Amino acid sequence: MTSGDRRHRLGHFTLESGATLPDAWIAYKTHGTLNAEGSNAVLYPTQFAAQHGDVEWMIGPGRALDPRTHFIVVADQLGNGLSSSPSNTSPPYDRARFPVVTIRDDVTAQHRLLTEGLGVRHLALVVGYSMGAQQAFQWAVSHPGFVERIAPFCGTARTTAHNAVFLASLRTALTTDAAWLDGDYTSPPRRGLRALATISAGWGFSQNFYNRGGHRQLGFSSIADCITGFWEARYAKRDANNLLSMIRTWELNDAGATPGMGGSLARALGSIRARCTIIASRTDLYFRPADLEAEANLIPGARFRVIPSDWGHMAGAGINPEDSAVLTEEIQALLAT
Amino acid sequence: MTSGDRRHRLGHFTLESGATLPDAWIAYKTHGTLNAEGSNAVLYPTQFAAQHGDVEWMIGPGRALDPRTHFIVVADQLGNGLSSSPSNTSPPYDRARFPVVTIRDDVTAQHRLLTEGLGVRHLALVVGYSMGAQQAFQWAVSHPGFVERIAPFCGTARTTAHNAVFLASLRTALTTDAAWLDGDYTSPPRRGLRALATISAGWGFSQNFYNRGGHRQLGFSSIADCITGFWEARYAKRDANNLLSMIRTWELNDAGATPGMGGSLARALGSIRARCTIIASRTDLYFRPADLEAEANLIPGARFRVIPSDWGHMAGAGINPEDSAVLTEEIQALLAT
Repeated sequence: MTSGDRRHRLGHFTLESGATLPDAWIAYKTHGTLNAEGSNAVLYPTQFAAQHGDVEWMIGPGRALDPRTHFIVVADQLGNGLSSSPSNTSPPYDRARFPVVTIRDDVTAQHRLLTEGLGVRHLALVVGYSMGAQQAFQWAVSHPGFVERIAPFCGTARTTAHNAVFLASLRTALTTDAAWLDGDYTSPPRRGLRALATISAGWGFSQNFYNRGGHRQLGFSSIADCITGFWEARYAKRDANNLLSMIRTWELNDAGATPGMGGSLARALGSIRARCTIIASRTDLYFRPADLEAEANLIPGARFRVIPSDWGHMAGAGINPEDSAVLTEEIQALLAT
Repeated sequence: MTSGDRRHRLGHFTLESGATLPDAWIAYKTHGTLNAEGSNAVLYPTQFAAQHGDVEWMIGPGRALDPRTHFIVVADQLGNGLSSSPSNTSPPYDRARFPVVTIRDDVTAQHRLLTEGLGVRHLALVVGYSMGAQQAFQWAVSHPGFVERIAPFCGTARTTAHNAVFLASLRTALTTDAAWLDGDYTSPPRRGLRALATISAGWGFSQNFYNRGGHRQLGFSSIADCITGFWEARYAKRDANNLLSMIRTWELNDAGATPGMGGSLARALGSIRARCTIIASRTDLYFRPADLEAEANLIPGARFRVIPSDWGHMAGAGINPEDSAVLTEEIQALLAT
């Protein structure tokens, strides 16, 4: 059973920054049915620039998340255009005035959705890609009694300094477009979105991917064709202020900043009681295996696996069947424990 | 003996594209004196966004290039603002109308400078960093009887597909600035230059460099401070059309396209008779050791060395003494053969 696209109302929702969003909501979609014991719920938060439809490649009979056995909740991240976002919030919190959201705010909204909206009191698994991985880590730190397993892939519990440089380049390029008008654009800042997409093209696939002609494998006749047909297409459909909001959330990501952890990532990750499988792509240029492995080493009993791929960060995007097969294998194995 | 900043006039200079630059010139600076045998000349072409003053860290008594023993010619690349460039060429070839320049055009201009202007008939060494390395490779392919040794570092003989994606992001970000006005700006497109600089910040140093706080080692208090104080400072002083011209030259770089080589990089590099030492930085994100080593393997007898650095591409920029020491050691050893 698949629900339609739904919203759970959060009312006046106070964010970690202290700002309060009036009449906030979280969007979501569910697959499957919660069992009588309430033991089969899986949460899948979305990643940067994604919406719940973008992650459905992982959901289906025989796939990593099987709605015949699990109740799968795909939660839209705040700022993604479906949950409360710069693009859909009324003044005075609209557009660039939308307050700063943290990964912990996303987790708080999802906790309310699950407990108030769906009657879920226990999660068999939180799985997430990239910014979704950030949310999975935060769930395990913030709600140790609620989460039995996490499977973060191609993402970290704390944003690295180099990640922050990459994110600064995305923001600077997007806001260079005069049409951005400090967020009060009347039509999309297309050139800025193109610039953001072109930067992402360089970081998203690995060097080896392009150098062996991987873009042709995807059906693009040239580098320029791949930049336009693949990367610009991904971002042209997104709202610029929404992307900037999610960039800010990504920059601030730090599970070590969870209240009670004294600012220590080691303490936060050391407190995790969930079974944890962390999966990296061998050639990911901004969530590198070494970064994920260092965090895995801080989590008691965590399993760490590397996808032997040259698809870079995109190994987690569900595009390349060989990479997706590794994710499926690991997630199914984790759920079977 | 050091010459002042000088120009060699090229007259009507026909480029590989077929366009002719009227009244073209190449700028240069020399250090030391050509000996009676004419056996001690070294050519050092400049790299992307650089001018001859930027490479002088390698020149001096006891350094890699010693003016007491060698006659060192630092040649400014076409488009760099000192040699003929979009910024200093008269209409109708000014600004964005400046014709496409290839690495082979640079080599042709340098050959004329050496033979017509300086009486040099033999080069003991061509050394170059990044786009300078591209010129060193091309010298060895185009003028096998002229060049005794080459030492290209942190650069390749052919631009990779991934390099082309990175370069596309620089161009797209810079030209997103409405102030660019298709190259006819009346004041510099500062925001576009900032965006280009911020992208370069992500690629120029390695992930590990930032993650261990290398920016603090350089004297910058934060990532944002490093982006502005180091990266924006490097590019804010350059002309936007000049940078775009050099980006185009970089994109087109392919020693395999040398006339007579049938489009084959293997044939072009296989034809090199110069002694060759190729040096890579272990963490260079756009001229990776694997890419340089693959080319080294195509050159008869080439030596390949990796600088064990986390400074990424900047290992070749003369900023970090430990990295510079490796370059000095290798270049001195090559000159001693």
